[in-house]
Order: sequence, then C-alpha cells, then structure tokens
Amino acid sequence: SKYGYVKRFEADDAVLPECWIVVRLDGKGFTKFTAAHGLAKPSDERALSLMDRAAQEVMHEFRDIRIAFGESDEYSFVFHKHTALYGRRASKLLSLVVSLFTAAYVRFWPHCLPDTELQQTPCFDARAVCYPNNKTLRDYLAWRQADTHINTQYNTCYWALVNSGKSGKEAQEYLKGTQTAFKNELLYREFKINYNELPARFRKGSVVFWKPPTSLDPSSRSQKHALMVQHEDIIKDAFWEQYPHILS
Amino acid sequence: SKYGYVKRFEADDAVLPECWIVVRLDGKGFTKFTAAHGLAKPSDERALSLMDRAAQEVMHEFRDIRIAFGESDEYSFVFHKHTALYGRRASKLLSLVVSLFTAAYVRFWPHCLPDTELQQTPCFDARAVCYPNNKTLRDYLAWRQADTHINTQYNTCYWALVNSGKSGKEAQEYLKGTQTAFKNELLYREFKINYNELPARFRKGSVVFWKPPTSLDPSSRSQKHALMVQHEDIIKDAFWEQYPHILS
Amino acid sequence: SKYGYVKRFEADDAVLPECWIVVRLDGKGFTKFTAAHGLAKPSDERALSLMDRAAQEVMHEFRDIRIAFGESDEYSFVFHKHTALYGRRASKLLSLVVSLFTAAYVRFWPHCLPDTELQQTPCFDARAVCYPNNKTLRDYLAWRQADTHINTQYNTCYWALVNSGKSGKEAQEYLKGTQTAFKNELLYREFKINYNELPARFRKGSVVFWKPPTSLDPSSRSQKHALMVQHEDIIKDAFWEQYPHILS
Amino acid sequence: SKYGYVKRFEADDAVLPECWIVVRLDGKGFTKFTAAHGLAKPSDERALSLMDRAAQEVMHEFRDIRIAFGESDEYSFVFHKHTALYGRRASKLLSLVVSLFTAAYVRFWPHCLPDTELQQTPCFDARAVCYPNNKTLRDYLAWRQADTHINTQYNTCYWALVNSGKSGKEAQEYLKGTQTAFKNELLYREFKINYNELPARFRKGSVVFWKPPTSLDPSSRSQKHALMVQHEDIIKDAFWEQYPHILS
Ligand SMILES: Nc1nc2c(ncn2[C@H]2C[C@H](O)[C@@H](COP(=O)(O)OP(=O)(O)OP(=O)(O)O)O2)c(=O)[nH]1
Ligand SMILES: Nc1nc2c(ncn2[C@H]2C[C@H](O)[C@@H](COP(=O)(O)OP(=O)(O)OP(=O)(O)O)O2)c(=O)[nH]1
Ligand SMILES: Nc1nc2c(ncn2[C@H]2C[C@H](O)[C@@H](COP(=O)(O)OP(=O)(O)OP(=O)(O)O)O2)c(=O)[nH]1
Ligand SMILES: Nc1nc2c(ncn2[C@H]2C[C@H](O)[C@@H](COP(=O)(O)OP(=O)(O)OP(=O)(O)O)O2)c(=O)[nH]1
Ligand SMILES: O=P(O)(O)OP(=O)(O)OP(=O)(O)O
Ligand SMILES: O=P(O)(O)OP(=O)(O)OP(=O)(O)O
Ligand SMILES: O=P(O)(O)OP(=O)(O)OP(=O)(O)O
Ligand SMILES: O=P(O)(O)OP(=O)(O)OP(=O)(O)O
Ligand SMILES: [Mg+2]
Ligand SMILES: [Mg+2]
Ligand SMILES: [Mg+2]
Ligand SMILES: [Mg+2]
Ligand SMILES: [Mg+2]
Ligand SMILES: [Mg+2]
Ligand SMILES: [Mg+2]
Ligand SMILES: [Mg+2]
Ligand SMILES: [Mg+2]
Ligand SMILES: [Mg+2]
Ligand SMILES: [Mg+2]
Ligand SMILES: [Mg+2]
Repeated sequence: SKYGYVKRFEADDAVLPECWIVVRLDGKGFTKFTAAHGLAKPSDERALSLMDRAAQEVMHEFRDIRIAFGESDEYSFVFHKHTALYGRRASKLLSLVVSLFTAAYVRFWPHCLPDTELQQTPCFDARAVCYPNNKTLRDYLAWRQADTHINTQYNTCYWALVNSGKSGKEAQEYLKGTQTAFKNELLYREFKINYNELPARFRKGSVVFWKPPTSLDPSSRSQKHALMVQHEDIIKDAFWEQYPHILS
Repeated sequence: SKYGYVKRFEADDAVLPECWIVVRLDGKGFTKFTAAHGLAKPSDERALSLMDRAAQEVMHEFRDIRIAFGESDEYSFVFHKHTALYGRRASKLLSLVVSLFTAAYVRFWPHCLPDTELQQTPCFDARAVCYPNNKTLRDYLAWRQADTHINTQYNTCYWALVNSGKSGKEAQEYLKGTQTAFKNELLYREFKINYNELPARFRKGSVVFWKPPTSLDPSSRSQKHALMVQHEDIIKDAFWEQYPHILS
Repeated sequence: SKYGYVKRFEADDAVLPECWIVVRLDGKGFTKFTAAHGLAKPSDERALSLMDRAAQEVMHEFRDIRIAFGESDEYSFVFHKHTALYGRRASKLLSLVVSLFTAAYVRFWPHCLPDTELQQTPCFDARAVCYPNNKTLRDYLAWRQADTHINTQYNTCYWALVNSGKSGKEAQEYLKGTQTAFKNELLYREFKINYNELPARFRKGSVVFWKPPTSLDPSSRSQKHALMVQHEDIIKDAFWEQYPHILS
Repeated sequence: SKYGYVKRFEADDAVLPECWIVVRLDGKGFTKFTAAHGLAKPSDERALSLMDRAAQEVMHEFRDIRIAFGESDEYSFVFHKHTALYGRRASKLLSLVVSLFTAAYVRFWPHCLPDTELQQTPCFDARAVCYPNNKTLRDYLAWRQADTHINTQYNTCYWALVNSGKSGKEAQEYLKGTQTAFKNELLYREFKINYNELPARFRKGSVVFWKPPTSLDPSSRSQKHALMVQHEDIIKDAFWEQYPHILS
C-alpha cells in the first residue's frame, strides 16, 4: 500500500553477537502495589512464589534462556550468548519476556494468593542488557544476589524496628550507615531473629535453570523439561562448578 | 558494591526528541491462540472488546498517549512528541505499555469472554517506532487501518468459502490476486453478506482517544477522564479536523 | 571464507528517515594547533578561509548537502532530510565528510597559508545529529551562529586586554559575567575597536550553500555548480525567505 | 542560550564495555583514484608504504590502539577492550582515527610518492565494530589477512593476463572459479612469477604494533615509542604467542 513506507522507520535493534543477553524486569510502583494488597513485610512467600511461577512460564516458552534470577519485584533472564531468537532483536526479546511474565503473574495470582483478590493491574518494566563474557555475566548475577542480601537484611531490621514501635524515620536513622554484623546482631539480640534462619528464598532470591543431563539417560524427555528452582548462592564458584551446563 | 560496575553495560536508548513515539504490540502466535479458544472467525466481537478494554487501561495509566489504534491481535499507542516520560527511553516505554496491556488482557478476560476459560498464557511482542512529523504519523495510522480493511475483507471471504465447503487451499487459490470490488461482490452474491454492514469494529478497527475539552467547561474533571472508543475512518482528514486536540 | 561471519558484528546505524542530518566536525586540540602555527588571535582570516575552502570541497562531492555553517575550528554540514546517500548510515556520512574535509584542509593549507609551514598533522572529530523538522534545524544553525558572536566578542576583548598588558587570568576575571553591551563599550572606549566593523567572517561565521536557480535559466550547468560563501545572519527569517530553495 | 536545547538531539553512541573496538577505514573510490595517479598494478609499494606511514601517525596519537592491520586501500585499528577514550563514543573514535589518517596520508604523500603529484583530494570512510572476545577479534584480523591473500593472488593473475594481451573481460572469465593452486601454477608457468616471492607486504598486508617490553629494560623510553611494521602471518597462533602483550 502507499502507506507501507512507514515500516522503514523501524530501527534495527539486533544486539551484538556472542554476548549473553540479560532481560531484567521490575515491578512498576510495587511499593504501593504490595502495600495495597497487604503483602507480608518485608518479604511475602506467596508473592515471591508467584514471581517464580511466572518465571518458569517464561523459561518453558523461551528455551534459549539458560538461567533466571529473581528477588523482590524483579527477575532477570539470561539468553544464551548464541541465541538467534528473533534475530536477537532487543525489543522482541524484552517485550515477549515481560509480556509473558506479566500474563502468568496475573493468571496465576489466584493460585498463589487465593485469599487476596487482585485489585489493581500490575505491570513490569523491562530492559535488555548485553554481557560480552562469562565473568561480566556472573558479576551481573552476583550484583543482583548481593542486592538481595543487602535489601532483605536491611528491610528485616527496618520492619522489626517499626513493628516494635519506632517510626519509619526513626528506624531509618537508626540503621543509617550500619554494617552487616551490626544488623545481624540487632536482629538476634533485640528480636530473637536469626537472620540465617530466614527462608533462603528471602536471603538468596530464586535461581531457575534446567536440570543438567544425567549420564544415565541424557536424552530422557522428562528431565529435559525439568526446571530447578533453587535459593542457593550463585556468587561463589561452587554453583557454577556444579552446573557447568548452564553457561556452556 | 564491587559488582555495581555491570550497570554500565546498559545502553542509553532514549529516542530522538520532538518525534511521535508509536508503541505497537502484537499477539504472539494468535493464529493458534484464537483457534485454541474457539473464537469467532474471522473476527470475534468479545476478543476485540477485550483488546479495547486493555488499551484503555494503558491510556489511563500513561497520560501522554494521545491516541491508540487497535485491530486483530495488535494495538498501537502514540505518545505525544513532547513526552518526557522515562526520559523517552524506548525500552521503558514499550515494556511498560506491553506489560500493562497484557496484564489487563488476562485480568479482564473473564469479563469479556465469560464463557471461555483462558487455557494458555497469552503474550504480545512490542516495539517503539519514531515518526518525525504529523504526516508520517498519520500515514502510520492509515497504514494500520488500511490493513484492517484488507484483512477483514479477505478473511471474511476466506471463511465464507471455507464454511461453504471449500478447503483452505481452494479458498486461498480462489481469492489470489482478486480486487476489493470482486470480493465485495462475492460476499454479496454468494453469501448475502453486505460487507459495509459488518460491524464497524471489524472493518475500521478501534480508535481510542481522550474526549476533546468542551468550550462550556474545559477544566471539568469528569471529561478529562473520558476516553472515546470509536470505529471511524482515520485515514481521511475529517477525523483529524474534528479532533485537532489529538495532535496538538 | 570461514572468517566472514565477523562481518555480522557490524551494527546497522541508519538514521531515522525524513530527518535533517547534521554532520558537525571540530578541530582536535586546535587551541594548541593554532598557537603552534602562530595564527592571528583570536581569528585568523587565512585559517578561516582554509576551513571554507575545505567545506566547499565537501559540498562539491556530496551534493545532498544543502547548507554548511563554519566558525572557529568547526563546520556543520546539513544533508537534505530525504537523502538516501549510503542508506543514511551515520558512520558512512560522518566519516566521509570529516575525511574529505581533513584531506582538503591539509592539501590546501599551502594555498591559504603560504608562509606558514604545516608542522603537525591536524585532525577533526565528527558526529551526526538528526533534526526532525525545519524549526529544530534552524535552531541548530542559530545555536552555532549565536556561539560565533559570543566567542568572537569575548575573545576580541580578551586578547585586546592581554595585548594591553593584562595577564590571561586578569583578563578573564575582568570579563567574567559581563554583558554584550559592556563588551562592545569596552572595545570601543579602550581599544578603539568598533565590534561591528570586524570582518563579517569573524562575527557571523561562514554560510555555504548552492546558488538558487534563476528563473531565466534554471537548468544552466554553470549555476548548478556555483557555491555561495556568505557571512550573513542566518538566525532571523530574512535569509531563509531569500533562499527558500535551501530547505525545500 | 535559547538554542542550546538542540544539543539534546545528540544520541549517546558509547559502545559496550569490555569489547575490542575495531575502526576500519577504506578509501572511497580508490579504483579510480589509484588509476588516476598511475599507481603500479595491482600493488604499489609506495602507496602501501604511505598507508603504513599514516597508520603509524594514528597509533602514535591514540595509544590505546594495540594493533593495526592494513592492506589495499583499507586499514583496521584495534582499540584495547578496556579503553576509556572519549567514553568509548563510537563517532568520536572513528572520526578522529579516519581524520588523522587522512591528514597524514595527504601530508606525507610527497614523501612516499615524490614523483607523483596529488591530483584529487582522497578520502576514506570509517566504521567502528565491536568484538566481544579474543577469538572473534582474531577471526576479524584473519578475515582481513585472508582477504589480502585472495585479492593479491587474483589481481596478480589478472594483471599478468591483461599485460600479456588479454582483455579485462577475458582475464576475468579465465580466472572465474579457479582455485589457489591453479593460480599459483598459472603465475609460475606462464609468467615466471613465484607468488611466494612477491613482497610480503603485498601478500600479507601490514601489521603494526608496539614493540614488546624487554626483560632488560621494561621501562626504557625509546622502546615504548617503537612501532613495529611487519608483514607476517597473523592468522596462525605463532604471532600471538610471540607477542602476547598485544591482547593482554
Ligand atoms: N511487602 C512486600 N513488599 C515487597 C515485596 N517484594 C517487593 N516489595 C516491595 C518493596 C519495595 O518497596 C518494592 C520494590 O522496589 P523498587 O525499587 O522496584 O520500587 P518500586 O517498584 O516501588 O518502584 P519502581 O516503579 O520499580 O521504580 O516492592 C514483598 O514480598 N512484600
Ligand atoms: N478467530 C479469530 N482470529 C483472530 C482474531 N483476531 C486475530 N486473529 C488471528 C488471525 C491471525 O491468524 C492472527 C493475527 O495475525 P498475526 O500476523 O499477528 O499472526 P500470529 O499472531 O499468529 O503470529 P505472530 O506471532 O504475530 O507472528 O490472529 C479474531 O477476532 N478471531
Ligand atoms: N589563534 C586562533 N585560534 C583559533 C582560531 N580558530 C579557532 N581557534 C582556537 C580557539 C580555541 O582555542 C580553539 C577552538 O576551541 P575548541 O573548543 O574546539 O577547543 P580545542 O580544539 O582546543 O579542543 P577540542 O579538541 O575541540 O576539545 O581553536 C583562529 O582563527 N585563530
Ligand atoms: N593500482 C593499484 N590499485 C590499488 C592499490 N591498492 C588498492 N587499489 C585499488 C584496487 C581496488 O580497485 C581498490 C580497492 O577496492 P575497494 O573495494 O575499496 O573499491 P573502491 O575503493 O574503488 O570503492 P569503495 O569506495 O571503497 O566502495 O583500490 C594499489 O596499490 N595499486
Ligand atoms: O509480524 P508481521 O508479519 O506482521 O510483520 P512484522 O511485525 O513487521 O514482523 P516482525 O514481527 O518480525 O517485526
Ligand atoms: O529502578 P532502580 O532505582 O532500581 O534503578 P534502575 O532500575 O537502574 O533505574 P531505572 O529503572 O530508571 O533504569
Ligand atoms: O565496501 P565493500 O564492498 O568491501 O564491503 P563493505 O565495506 O562491507 O560495504 P560497505 O562499505 O557498504 O559497508
Ligand atoms: O567540544 P565542546 O566542549 O565544544 O563540546 P562538545 O563538542 O559538545 O563536547 P564533545 O566534543 O565531548 O561532544
Ligand atoms: Mg528501575
Ligand atoms: Mg519496582
Ligand atoms: Mg525492584
Ligand atoms: Mg510481527
Ligand atoms: Mg500476532
Ligand atoms: Mg497481528
Ligand atoms: Mg567537542
Ligand atoms: Mg576543537
Ligand atoms: Mg571548536
Ligand atoms: Mg566498503
Ligand atoms: Mg575503497
Ligand atoms: Mg577496499
């Protein structure tokens, strides 16, 4: 048609070959959204499980995703560096991931939070970021998991203080500039909370990846479709040594 | 943290100032999705209404969207050329639009298709495209609406033929290379379908925009929040002369 | 060959259709370069003529350039918004312009500065910038010409003060925060310099464009090849009304 | 100034961190340019030396360039993957490299081709390409050097045939689809040319890099400033094993 020329205004946004492609999504205004739905503070097992559920839906659909990491209102999906999906077009990848994730989040909300009616339409932003090698990719994932620890520890202290009568401002002042050891101490002494006994999901976030092929039956159908959801450390080498297939 | 440097790998994707920004989304694999849910062929009033419903949710949230156009499994949203939303970052805009749209699509599915259970998780791709002036923007919208007409007319013929006993292949062969007049004629003579009496929603798609301010009460709160959903021609000048506020 | 795949790492950098494309180049370290060659301060007629000469070489080669503006060690070239040259690839356009300009600058140096031997290899950076409409393009050119005035006026004062015995620092202090009127006044009272009588090239920069077609012989070969080099105001409308062919 | 807003139209074109940045430049229309200056066919020692001379000028100025490779009318410059020069902005890097190269090419033309007057203003295009790891970077360089061999062998045959009386078209037909061995054979039998005895510069191109630090005096000033210009194989591992400092 005479209007078809407008298609030429679409820019090519294919990302550099041979780089890991991370799509990170993050809930828009989830400070309000979680409050409006009365979620447990600072971390709500059901809401986090829903995030993990949605992430699995994404991984089942896009098989070039090798690993995903989730915490709080965000999730990161790592496409294999050799993926040719949609010609590696950034907007295709990020839009499809965030759209499917969101759809699953809304669809499975009643499964994970059966007693809480969805009152607002949630949404997530997303971006695609390129990492040119394993080191930077692992540092990316370490960045997110270190963030999980920092936020969970801080927020646990914060809400413990607030629940014990302090104002939000006072709690903030009290925690300002304090170190990890101090906060652990505080939790233990004042609130009898052993930080290391909090659910691993809160402290470590969620790591989702495909089960490694076993030597017994590397082609078994079932295991190919088995996703692992773990709450382990992915900063140290151990995890990557145990599951070398993820980055291979 | 020592990992924070990975943030620097995020590229700046702000789009050129003073250009209209179109975010177009399109259902992934909706040929299968619509078939799996037994939607009316070629156009399903309920499914299209759900698309319109989701579009309104998006426009209520992002007030810099001046007009949206939907047809089939796609929707285009036009951000005002002067929008400063999220620093005009392409991935922010397209991801939030597609995510909110998808969330609303799933959330309001039971309202629009109460008798049809959602059996798969739907998702949409999205892209952001820049148009530097009113002419190219209008040509963009004309491109989509011309497409609506072409597809609806073709598909109406196709399904009429198939429903009358032809195979898909035969129907395709029969219609190959035929003109608009021939197809109208065919519908009328063979199937007693007056193309122009099909629902305007099928023939023209859906145009969504904010009600223009009235001279009586330009600041009235209610009208500011009033969205119009029309199925009118937006190719000719008349529409744009009637609603000059859209592009102003 | 087995290595040919590396070509795929080249990104597509075509710029948005229907936008004016400005390639601006600027001398690298010309503070030192001009000093090393003992050029007249603050403006050297010969050096500026050489810049204009190089600009003409560029315009003769790339006929889609409609207008160019030069001042100090910089030059801006405006490709017509409809140019299809090299598929509008940004790096092709900017590299060829800056390379040809530089080559001409070195080649014609002895013509314009016959008494000054070239002692260093000069070079220029370059960038391509898109302007989506006439207003922003004209504002771009106005930005550069306003800059010419501000710099020339300031530098004329500065060097007059320095030549009269002040140190660089003192001159700077003296001029800090002063207005246009004050500087004109200073030049006139202290140094008997009437700013408006300085060469127009210094005050207005250089505007280069193709001679407009005459009604007498619009297809005459000679005039097609005639470049105008002027030192007129291009901020006000008059220039653009006189030469409507430039942006048409 | 009120026009300063136009600066915001400049897009950020910083390239991905941790990637090797290759700037490749190539003579515009050098088929004509070399013919117009009567250069030796297919390869002119003086013209190639001038290219090498210009490349050295570039490397002396931009110290983050680790290696350069030249052949025919092109040169590739490899910036270290960690370079922070100009914030890794692609247009800054490519424009400065191509501009300085061109300036040197014109400036030193009389030194390398003293008997041939420069009759046209030469120019080069340039592009910046990212390579995310050593393998792809080495494959890039191998791609260019393999090209050198293919072109030089072909062109040597072609011109030998043409000089022996064949028309250009006949020579082309004759060589079409032939293998390396056949061409070597042809050169040897028909023209007594031992391909392997052609100057290495023609067969291998030029490799320019900094002399490695010696164990004796790693900080010696002189050696730091010593550029090597070689015509060795850079496809096989030997070169890289001999000079590990280049990619380190
Ligand atoms: N109560 C509760 N809040 C949570 C939970 N997970 C996340 N949140 C809240 C804590 C933070 O306020 C917020 C996530 O922080 P963000 O930096 O993403 O902020 P927010 O989403 O409000 O704004 P944004 O639109 O992302 O800029 O979500 C949870 O499990 N329970
Ligand atoms: N039955 C029915 N089908 C519809 C309706 N609206 C859209 N569709 C179908 C018709 C087309 O097969 C499909 C839209 O065409 P597309 O080109 O977007 O193809 P599809 O979504 O299958 O693939 P894609 O992932 O977009 O490349 O959706 C509807 O109202 N009723
Ligand atoms: N003496 C003299 N100097 C001039 C003339 N034209 C330009 N210049 C000098 C004045 C400035 O110091 C310099 C241009 O300013 P820039 O902002 O471009 O600085 P420069 O080139 O030193 O650094 P750059 O590499 O562009 O960041 O060139 C001239 O005609 N005569
Ligand atoms: N006689 C002669 N010709 C050479 C020499 N080095 C390069 N050339 C010529 C051979 C080719 O025709 C041309 C380089 O090929 P290109 O593919 O770069 O073509 P050209 O520069 O004509 O077009 P372009 O603007 O790069 O697309 O330069 C030389 O040493 N002697
Ligand atoms: O999806 P199509 O076939 O309508 O055409 P497109 O959307 O332009 O293609 P793509 O989705 O691959 O950009
Ligand atoms: O959203 P924040 O504050 O965690 O940080 P960010 O996601 O890097 O910021 P933005 O969403 O604006 O890219
Ligand atoms: O110029 P060619 O033909 O060697 O190939 P290219 O350089 O990849 O093509 P272009 O200059 O158009 O990018
Ligand atoms: O070079 P300046 O200081 O005039 O300003 P700029 O050219 O916008 O800065 P840069 O050369 O770093 O883009
Ligand atoms: Mg954010
Ligand atoms: Mg959030
Ligand atoms: Mg968050
Ligand atoms: Mg599509
Ligand atoms: Mg679709
Ligand atoms: Mg579609
Ligand atoms: Mg600058
Ligand atoms: Mg400069
Ligand atoms: Mg300057
Ligand atoms: Mg080329
Ligand atoms: Mg060439
Ligand atoms: Mg070449």
